[in-house]
Amino acid sequence: MLACAPELIHAYSLVHDDLPCMDDDDMRRGHPTVHKVYGARTAILAGVAMIPLSARVVRDSGRAMQLADQATAKVLDALLEASGAGGMIGGQLRDLAGEGLLLSLDEREAIHLAKTGAIIAACVQMGAVAAGCDAAGVAALERYGRSVGLAFQIMDDVLDVTSTTKALGKTTGRDAVLGKSTYPALLGVDGARRRAETLIEDGLQSLAHHKLLTQELSQVANFMVTRTS
Amino acid sequence: MLACAPELIHAYSLVHDDLPCMDDDDMRRGHPTVHKVYGARTAILAGVAMIPLSARVVRDSGRAMQLADQATAKVLDALLEASGAGGMIGGQLRDLAGEGLLLSLDEREAIHLAKTGAIIAACVQMGAVAAGCDAAGVAALERYGRSVGLAFQIMDDVLDVTSTTKALGKTTGRDAVLGKSTYPALLGVDGARRRAETLIEDGLQSLAHHKLLTQELSQVANFMVTRTS
Repeated sequence: MLACAPELIHAYSLVHDDLPCMDDDDMRRGHPTVHKVYGARTAILAGVAMIPLSARVVRDSGRAMQLADQATAKVLDALLEASGAGGMIGGQLRDLAGEGLLLSLDEREAIHLAKTGAIIAACVQMGAVAAGCDAAGVAALERYGRSVGLAFQIMDDVLDVTSTTKALGKTTGRDAVLGKSTYPALLGVDGARRRAETLIEDGLQSLAHHKLLTQELSQVANFMVTRTS
Repeated sequence: MLACAPELIHAYSLVHDDLPCMDDDDMRRGHPTVHKVYGARTAILAGVAMIPLSARVVRDSGRAMQLADQATAKVLDALLEASGAGGMIGGQLRDLAGEGLLLSLDEREAIHLAKTGAIIAACVQMGAVAAGCDAAGVAALERYGRSVGLAFQIMDDVLDVTSTTKALGKTTGRDAVLGKSTYPALLGVDGARRRAETLIEDGLQSLAHHKLLTQELSQVANFMVTRTS
């Protein structure tokens, strides 16, 4: 149930990303986007309503898991910090500001880390805190989350070039239209893939070093570089 | 410092309310609106960034006031519940859906209570919980907050008709343009004023009954029906 909280933040970010004044996208997960069906007003409001709702899910999950109030507060902090100006929103703002500009790899990486890495790292961090993991373990899992998040976003750039709208469930080729300095644009498709694979290896090594590597965490990480949609 | 948390929620709601796809307003507090200066994208992102920021303010305030984690969690709950689909956002959605329709007084009141009453009630509730008030006291203060919030919104409708853009710091006459069933439209300007005054009396009596009436709370309430901007 706790996993629904970041999923709500993720869902709201997609609804807002697709807005006419953002990426102006008509398709998402093979369906018309929220604003195409219900209009931009409702899409904006549905998006913002999911933020307090995700906080309520954290609170209710904390109760259901009988977490101490302090642990629940930490879990909520991790999610809200990653969703705010220092995380997802800051990344989105810089992403939009960078459209049509030639960004360096470092700038693109910083944007991806803020926009996607922070939320995925928060997901892992939330689970680690809820499970009572120690500080070193939480840090290793957070590093894994950032690597996996960045690799996800790199492969998102790659799939935007190599996949089809039908296979991906959202319009492909949007990055080129929007003039984004993507990883494939900066490193080529193969170079971008290699960068994603290196990140996954780094994340998994960080876990192995702390004896936290499980089959599930390995599968999630490898899925990032093998997914086709 | 805790008071900054609902103020952030209020500020974000104003930035979003003024958006071209919402009330499409050019002026706020005597200045051009955020989207007029920075564009709709930045206005949307600045708005959503204030939600996690307000939660961080609650957390930091709780620490500064040395509140128990449980009390801080309650304070945050009150704010987030009032900001979500059951409060402000639900009210805003119904307000927009009601444009151009003839709403009954009950429907308008329900919208005002959700849109504004919930947040103002949450402000009072947050202070009450942080101050260690008992359940009956919190309930009386919440009732006061709802009355004051509703009276504020009624007077907002009244000032939209009776004030000028210069005096009010935002464009007047917008409700008529948007076809909203406002209190003055439903009860006349005098009837709307009387309804606001009755609500303030009711709120103050509820506090007096619990021996919670202070000069400040009385002044805040009376300001709602005497303000000119």
